[in-house]
Amino acid sequence: MTAPFRIAMFGAGRIGNVHARNINDHPQSVLAYVVDPMEGPAQELAARYGASQVDEATALGDASIDAILVASATSTHADLIVKGLQAGKAVFCEKPVDLSITRVAATLKVVEASDKPVLIAFNRRFDPGVAEVQRRAADGAVGMIEIVNVTSKDPEGGLPIEYLKVSGGMFRDMTIHDFDMCRFLLGEEPTTVSATASSLVSPEIAAIGDIDTACVTLQCASGRIAIITNSRRASSGYDQRVEVHGATGTLRTENVPKNMFVHESGSMVERSTPKFFFTDRYAESYAAEWAHFVRVLEGTEQPNPSTADGYRSLLLAEAAYVSLKTGSVANVADVERELVG
Amino acid sequence: MTAPFRIAMFGAGRIGNVHARNINDHPQSVLAYVVDPMEGPAQELAARYGASQVDEATALGDASIDAILVASATSTHADLIVKGLQAGKAVFCEKPVDLSITRVAATLKVVEASDKPVLIAFNRRFDPGVAEVQRRAADGAVGMIEIVNVTSKDPEGGLPIEYLKVSGGMFRDMTIHDFDMCRFLLGEEPTTVSATASSLVSPEIAAIGDIDTACVTLQCASGRIAIITNSRRASSGYDQRVEVHGATGTLRTENVPKNMFVHESGSMVERSTPKFFFTDRYAESYAAEWAHFVRVLEGTEQPNPSTADGYRSLLLAEAAYVSLKTGSVANVADVERELVG
Amino acid sequence: MTAPFRIAMFGAGRIGNVHARNINDHPQSVLAYVVDPMEGPAQELAARYGASQVDEATALGDASIDAILVASATSTHADLIVKGLQAGKAVFCEKPVDLSITRVAATLKVVEASDKPVLIAFNRRFDPGVAEVQRRAADGAVGMIEIVNVTSKDPEGGLPIEYLKVSGGMFRDMTIHDFDMCRFLLGEEPTTVSATASSLVSPEIAAIGDIDTACVTLQCASGRIAIITNSRRASSGYDQRVEVHGATGTLRTENVPKNMFVHESGSMVERSTPKFFFTDRYAESYAAEWAHFVRVLEGTEQPNPSTADGYRSLLLAEAAYVSLKTGSVANVADVERELVG
Amino acid sequence: MTAPFRIAMFGAGRIGNVHARNINDHPQSVLAYVVDPMEGPAQELAARYGASQVDEATALGDASIDAILVASATSTHADLIVKGLQAGKAVFCEKPVDLSITRVAATLKVVEASDKPVLIAFNRRFDPGVAEVQRRAADGAVGMIEIVNVTSKDPEGGLPIEYLKVSGGMFRDMTIHDFDMCRFLLGEEPTTVSATASSLVSPEIAAIGDIDTACVTLQCASGRIAIITNSRRASSGYDQRVEVHGATGTLRTENVPKNMFVHESGSMVERSTPKFFFTDRYAESYAAEWAHFVRVLEGTEQPNPSTADGYRSLLLAEAAYVSLKTGSVANVADVERELVG
Repeated sequence: MTAPFRIAMFGAGRIGNVHARNINDHPQSVLAYVVDPMEGPAQELAARYGASQVDEATALGDASIDAILVASATSTHADLIVKGLQAGKAVFCEKPVDLSITRVAATLKVVEASDKPVLIAFNRRFDPGVAEVQRRAADGAVGMIEIVNVTSKDPEGGLPIEYLKVSGGMFRDMTIHDFDMCRFLLGEEPTTVSATASSLVSPEIAAIGDIDTACVTLQCASGRIAIITNSRRASSGYDQRVEVHGATGTLRTENVPKNMFVHESGSMVERSTPKFFFTDRYAESYAAEWAHFVRVLEGTEQPNPSTADGYRSLLLAEAAYVSLKTGSVANVADVERELVG
Repeated sequence: MTAPFRIAMFGAGRIGNVHARNINDHPQSVLAYVVDPMEGPAQELAARYGASQVDEATALGDASIDAILVASATSTHADLIVKGLQAGKAVFCEKPVDLSITRVAATLKVVEASDKPVLIAFNRRFDPGVAEVQRRAADGAVGMIEIVNVTSKDPEGGLPIEYLKVSGGMFRDMTIHDFDMCRFLLGEEPTTVSATASSLVSPEIAAIGDIDTACVTLQCASGRIAIITNSRRASSGYDQRVEVHGATGTLRTENVPKNMFVHESGSMVERSTPKFFFTDRYAESYAAEWAHFVRVLEGTEQPNPSTADGYRSLLLAEAAYVSLKTGSVANVADVERELVG
Repeated sequence: MTAPFRIAMFGAGRIGNVHARNINDHPQSVLAYVVDPMEGPAQELAARYGASQVDEATALGDASIDAILVASATSTHADLIVKGLQAGKAVFCEKPVDLSITRVAATLKVVEASDKPVLIAFNRRFDPGVAEVQRRAADGAVGMIEIVNVTSKDPEGGLPIEYLKVSGGMFRDMTIHDFDMCRFLLGEEPTTVSATASSLVSPEIAAIGDIDTACVTLQCASGRIAIITNSRRASSGYDQRVEVHGATGTLRTENVPKNMFVHESGSMVERSTPKFFFTDRYAESYAAEWAHFVRVLEGTEQPNPSTADGYRSLLLAEAAYVSLKTGSVANVADVERELVG
Repeated sequence: MTAPFRIAMFGAGRIGNVHARNINDHPQSVLAYVVDPMEGPAQELAARYGASQVDEATALGDASIDAILVASATSTHADLIVKGLQAGKAVFCEKPVDLSITRVAATLKVVEASDKPVLIAFNRRFDPGVAEVQRRAADGAVGMIEIVNVTSKDPEGGLPIEYLKVSGGMFRDMTIHDFDMCRFLLGEEPTTVSATASSLVSPEIAAIGDIDTACVTLQCASGRIAIITNSRRASSGYDQRVEVHGATGTLRTENVPKNMFVHESGSMVERSTPKFFFTDRYAESYAAEWAHFVRVLEGTEQPNPSTADGYRSLLLAEAAYVSLKTGSVANVADVERELVG
């Protein structure tokens, strides 16, 4: 067994804590550095796992560091990917790459010119249920894929309005996960996008000009269709389901209940609600995602999802906004030509 | 207890047999006559329940007949509704009223001018699970209704190509049930319609110019959204689910399994597939629908769904075709003005 | 197609009504006569299906009658089996044959000496879920059978105290279904019985000296074990589950919900309760049981369960009472020797 | 916030690793020492969490250590409890206290004479589903408790024959968890025990004189009944279910699936099997158990389960062996008098 990979983590927030634990639990990785403008949380997180709190220059300048994990604010992602690659590090970057499609396109060029791997962390691909659905669909277990349904609803009050204000809008911030999921499951690139959306959840969201309830329909050249149902409030907890309908069967994942408790009384049968939000619901996906990245570092797997995946998903978000504005089906290639050139 | 209502049934096919049994099982109704151009099946059905096989004139001319049940070919529905009303009978008519929106509009005028009740048999409203969802949603159990999802997929090979040729097209024949379901559950009339559709299931269906895979999105003035997912082939049996997402909760119905058998082996857990098609899946809904019609005859309930419901649902089908053709959102009021005036 | 079998039914109560409908629905059988000391219900039931209400002598004396269905009071079963056979009729008899083991033994001798078939209607064997479990278990789908668990609980208030007073006691009246189920699923005759029981449900039941809560454990010569859990009150409806644990897997049936409705709110997920009692829960089993009996009349199947099955199950009930009294494991062969000789 | 509690852990095996992670994850505890005769695994485990590998004397002699966690071989448990208490440490001890009822009785006396808390780690009480069942049952959510069913089956090949040889026999090693579960859920002490058991799973187990398939029935003075179903091989994974039947309802927990994947094909619906064994199935229970122990150290909760719980459960195991040997119901008080005095 070789020495474990040494990781420098940028960002000591909620998702940084999730990754730190997985890095420490994995026999082939250790957390070496934590970098965060908020020194208190960075020090606390570093201490728990025997790491050091340092500044960016120290982390990037240490030749013993194999990879950086970017879990800092979205606006810093693209810069850190580029700096990391320049410093010769592999990069694990939280989604999205950036909120600007042109900036993502530019970053993608840098990534493609580098020989270091970059993983864009659409973690849901690593959920055990989702991964099983995709594996079987790709293996032909349901024949020709015809319809993909993605239900994705944040729990009510899951995200504060301050976050939403700088989120880039629902399609770029939240639906981007679902665009990635559709691409992951369809096995074919969508060519057109139709969007229907409303502001129903809160006057606060309407006041910042954002939508909170939507249906986005994607169609591929072959005719296969993907349908995304979105809401910013699922009152019983995180609603995260996918379904692949094919010529010979259907694959799906259901919500993960908090526990398997059942209460039967005279008038009803009661069960537990779904796990409330992403740190619970996707705990296993984060660990599996990290294990994949370690295999990328070992050279046995290619980073998947890649920066190109991040780019394609953001492009679908842009097309959805075009459809919403025009009241017509948006052609993805046309949107790309107009926005990126 | 008063004497049971005497019923004359038109049509001795598969659905006629379902209704005949329910008429006989209900303590307040008896099957008196069966009318069908195919005399053999009509005689056989009549014999099973102590009824007589007669011609149309006899059935409509017998003053002791309280109501007619129209389960004959679609092209005969509108005529029989009118003739039944003229003969002073209440009418229970299978969906659709007709495939022509102008003819349905004309029939609706006759119905509205009559003092006899007419029920248009969108049976799914009477499914115990669907009815519970609608009752709770209407009672405010999930707060403001925001999203309705209807999944509706016929089992593979459920319908022969000869039937499909004269069906009027998927939106008018199959999706019409789902348009009715959306209207039933939304609690608000949809104002716009967007459709995405493909021909994936069979070259035979493509050859007759029909679609077989679709997503239709409806939006109401308040912003609430309904999403229909359709396919002509569900390989594991009839796929019939509805879901109402509201501000404070979610209501839904799942597919009804054939039985509650479970087989756990080393590698998997196996359960039964859903009931295969409508006579099994909706057996209870047909009985409940008939019980409702008996209460209509008793004067304690109004027919629901009504002919107006049949008209509104067909109008949504027409709007869906307009959206499909234009690649844009179709405004229902505009479509009505253009097609009906 | 030959002429349908003509059936004379004894007993026009709740279960008689269930059977009458199934007889009429089956293409190869017709209900000819209904016999019941209560003439009103007998006439009503006969009228619904075009049959005649007659007395016992008429029914048994009519040579055109192929079979009798015995759904009258338990005390009349053994006599009617014997009279039916003497009149040359096939017999479909509700469980139990009788409450006296010696009388059942005597009836069994008559049945075995006759060339007409007798079916003892332990209907649960025909439940689609149970039948699938048994078929797979018998086919070796879970390897060597090791443990059978039967959960059987009547809904609260399902049976009036007047019925319980003449029921013969819980083991002979209610658990007898479960003894039959264990024998059906074990694939081997139990040799010993241990019983634990209490009176917890109602002082009324305790006052008549009966038990209402019990666990009975059966063991076979090979070592395989069956475990019955019984209660006279399941507050959320009929609790009817079986489970077969084998060397390579597990087969089971779960309760059948009233419908597939789901309500997710902020604090819980609610589903429907199980079907309340036997006419709902076992509706399909009664129809399948009748279809089996028609095949028996056609000569293509042997009656199963047989009168011998009725005898063996009552013998296990007797052994359970012996175990309860002695506080020790009861040997079934010893109990048989002592009670039957 | 006070300084975290410092913990010395005895035993660096599978379960020790589980506890070490939970100690490190908890903000109020740190792993200080690991003690194990196998120095390699001890050093590795210590290194992962910034602890030191030391010998027993060092760990017990360090005044800064607040508590010891005993996860070493069963034969060392009783000694370490006593030594820990003598050194002034609180004790978290894996089940069982010991395989000898007299030694457990002696240890219990020492514990009761000490002012330091001792927790006996029957972890299943802390499973989220089980805990919810117990909380509601104790709160009267199902009225008077009448029947408790515990299904407990180890996965096939879960435990090697070498382990089983020194395990003390199935009732003392495996069923002891279920005896604890029955006592936890019944809310009343069982007074009698009946056991039925077989050797079906493997000739190896039969050869060491042990059983592997069993049903144990417990009855309380009030008449309430508990039923344990046990097997050493559940081919589809760990089978761990509990059910409390009360006068007004039923509470239960179902097995925890590996994931929420569903595959519907033409002939069946497939789902994931249950989590395979205790480190997966009970991962959450171990974390909750540790959180409870931290609250015990903080003085806000009493250790529960206690050493007395460990004693009572082993006594039920002894009574089960007596019943098995005599073929009669065993009286727990009589067994205690005979074995312990």
